[in-house]
Amino acid sequence: NFTRGLQTVTLIPGDGIGPEISSAVVKIFEAAKAPIQWEERNVTAIKGPGGKWMIPPEAKESMDKSKIGLKGPLKTPIAAGHPSMNLLLRKTFDLYANVRPCVSMEGYKTPYTDVNLVTIRENTEGEYSGIEHLIVDGVVQSIKLITEDASRRIAEYAFEYARNNQRTSVTAVHKANIMRMSDGLFLRKCREVAENFKDIKFTEMYLDTVCLNMVQDPTQFDVLVMPNLYGDILSDLCAGLIGGLGVTPSGNIGANGVAIFESVHGTAPDIAGLDMANPTALLLSAVMMLRHMGLHGHAQKIETACFETIRDRKVLTKDLGGNSKCSEFTGEICRRVQDMD
Amino acid sequence: NFTRGLQTVTLIPGDGIGPEISSAVVKIFEAAKAPIQWEERNVTAIKGPGGKWMIPPEAKESMDKSKIGLKGPLKTPIAAGHPSMNLLLRKTFDLYANVRPCVSMEGYKTPYTDVNLVTIRENTEGEYSGIEHLIVDGVVQSIKLITEDASRRIAEYAFEYARNNQRTSVTAVHKANIMRMSDGLFLRKCREVAENFKDIKFTEMYLDTVCLNMVQDPTQFDVLVMPNLYGDILSDLCAGLIGGLGVTPSGNIGANGVAIFESVHGTAPDIAGLDMANPTALLLSAVMMLRHMGLHGHAQKIETACFETIRDRKVLTKDLGGNSKCSEFTGEICRRVQDMD
Ligand SMILES: CC(C)[C@H](C(=O)O)[C@@H](O)C(=O)O
Ligand SMILES: CC(C)[C@H](C(=O)O)[C@@H](O)C(=O)O
Repeated sequence: NFTRGLQTVTLIPGDGIGPEISSAVVKIFEAAKAPIQWEERNVTAIKGPGGKWMIPPEAKESMDKSKIGLKGPLKTPIAAGHPSMNLLLRKTFDLYANVRPCVSMEGYKTPYTDVNLVTIRENTEGEYSGIEHLIVDGVVQSIKLITEDASRRIAEYAFEYARNNQRTSVTAVHKANIMRMSDGLFLRKCREVAENFKDIKFTEMYLDTVCLNMVQDPTQFDVLVMPNLYGDILSDLCAGLIGGLGVTPSGNIGANGVAIFESVHGTAPDIAGLDMANPTALLLSAVMMLRHMGLHGHAQKIETACFETIRDRKVLTKDLGGNSKCSEFTGEICRRVQDMD
Repeated sequence: NFTRGLQTVTLIPGDGIGPEISSAVVKIFEAAKAPIQWEERNVTAIKGPGGKWMIPPEAKESMDKSKIGLKGPLKTPIAAGHPSMNLLLRKTFDLYANVRPCVSMEGYKTPYTDVNLVTIRENTEGEYSGIEHLIVDGVVQSIKLITEDASRRIAEYAFEYARNNQRTSVTAVHKANIMRMSDGLFLRKCREVAENFKDIKFTEMYLDTVCLNMVQDPTQFDVLVMPNLYGDILSDLCAGLIGGLGVTPSGNIGANGVAIFESVHGTAPDIAGLDMANPTALLLSAVMMLRHMGLHGHAQKIETACFETIRDRKVLTKDLGGNSKCSEFTGEICRRVQDMD
């Protein structure tokens, strides 16, 4: 994993604006002298033995070695039967926790200020089991699968995360009043794990209540932990509160240090190649990655440069309300990073 | 159903603040000379033959006769194994559509203005099937059941509703990218029904995208139709945008005119009996009920009086930012209703 003090990261630029925003991140990392060596890989689903969809072996091998990936947006599958690469990556590397910090940014106005929360989503099971049946004509069932192991694992991750990130409370989000057995099991594991983290306040709340309270006063929330689908919903809702997917980082965490950090916005094919894209979401995901790798100094520097650039409102991409190109926005962040030395 | 020109409505006052806000509504209806005769019934789950939970026969018989109910908040079951009365009522009367208009109110400030949308929730199946199993120790499944009939029925309801209420678009909310068979079936039925409503614009959107867009700009939405759980979430989220459950009406609609209108907030036991409760949600639900019964003139009068009272901000209950008692707020609405004659 180390070459002359450099740590290797697998870079998956992705589709559409992916390559542009990836090279923006690479430039900013260079300016910050981040000790990272990139190994660029493409991922397109390929059919393996037995017709099973897999990610290409070069990408798999790179990730197996580096353990850490940074990923731009990927096209949603168009061909029927073609799998979502995002789901396939989560599965291949057992990335069981999706972590999304949502923090209000000065300089980018939304109806909300002082949002500062993190959604932690179970990323492997639940409503995403993929098990579905036709019972009789016109009657279909989808199976939501909840296991003790995955529930305990995500609960432990959430509490560890809270403790390691100076956060004070964890809220388990559920509908155990309706799905008594499945959400009930999830909730029970959260309660059990909470017992081992007496320094962290534990609360439990219904998903519908969380949604209502979230849009009324998001500042009441800190760390939220929940099953897969609820996380899908809540993480997007929370991203909306602070400005959307263009400014929200995301990390998918597995066991033994394996992780892929990614921007969760789309590929924006309409502006691809036009030097108009906003690299913020991928950059902030890369900052999460640096922290994950223990490179806190570099993370801090880059994050500060990014936040200050946005706060000053002088050099912003169009989606952030400015007139600047992606390269100008990137240049401004590089300049600020270098000024810090 | 008619006694000397009066239509009977089954009134279920409910628990906590339920009786106070119910009598507020009764007073306002009297002031408006609404041709309604109330038949008051309590509902507490009782055990029927074979140990099955049922609603008390007096309530059931009243509803069977009147077809229309108005219901205050009910305590959530405390005893284990005791069913939710709300779910039991939906089931008993096959109330397949939950309808919640969310409209911004002048005078009650939230971060959003000009919200004017309606969520239509499938109310009988999906994630609320109640079918769950322990597969092996530590592995649990919950079954989401989607049927062609229920999907078509709710889609038809949504389009009819749009047409009858001068609305122009219906958005189907789904996760058919993940639950391809179940949400896929739901979506297919929406598409099919859309074919018969060429005057209404039809769009489809992922639930996560709807949540994100909803908090960024709710004015883009009109009528939304979706499976049970998604409706549970979105209807609460949307209520949050306009001021919460204290001001949001709700109707549960069945076949052949059967319907129960209800406030969906809690029983607020802490302020019960103190003349402090806000009857707005129940009153606006009662206004929906009047429209459902074809009593549009009375509905309009009461709604206007309620909205104007809130807009003027002189006589408001505490939760709405005022200092007035429930009885004073109610009196003010009555005065305005009478002034309209
Ligand atoms: C692309 C899609 C499969 C995915 C999901 O539903 O999980 C997306 O919404 C996400 O949150 O990463
Ligand atoms: C009380 C509860 C069973 C119910 C639900 O989950 O449907 C409530 O949240 C609602 O929306 O009416």
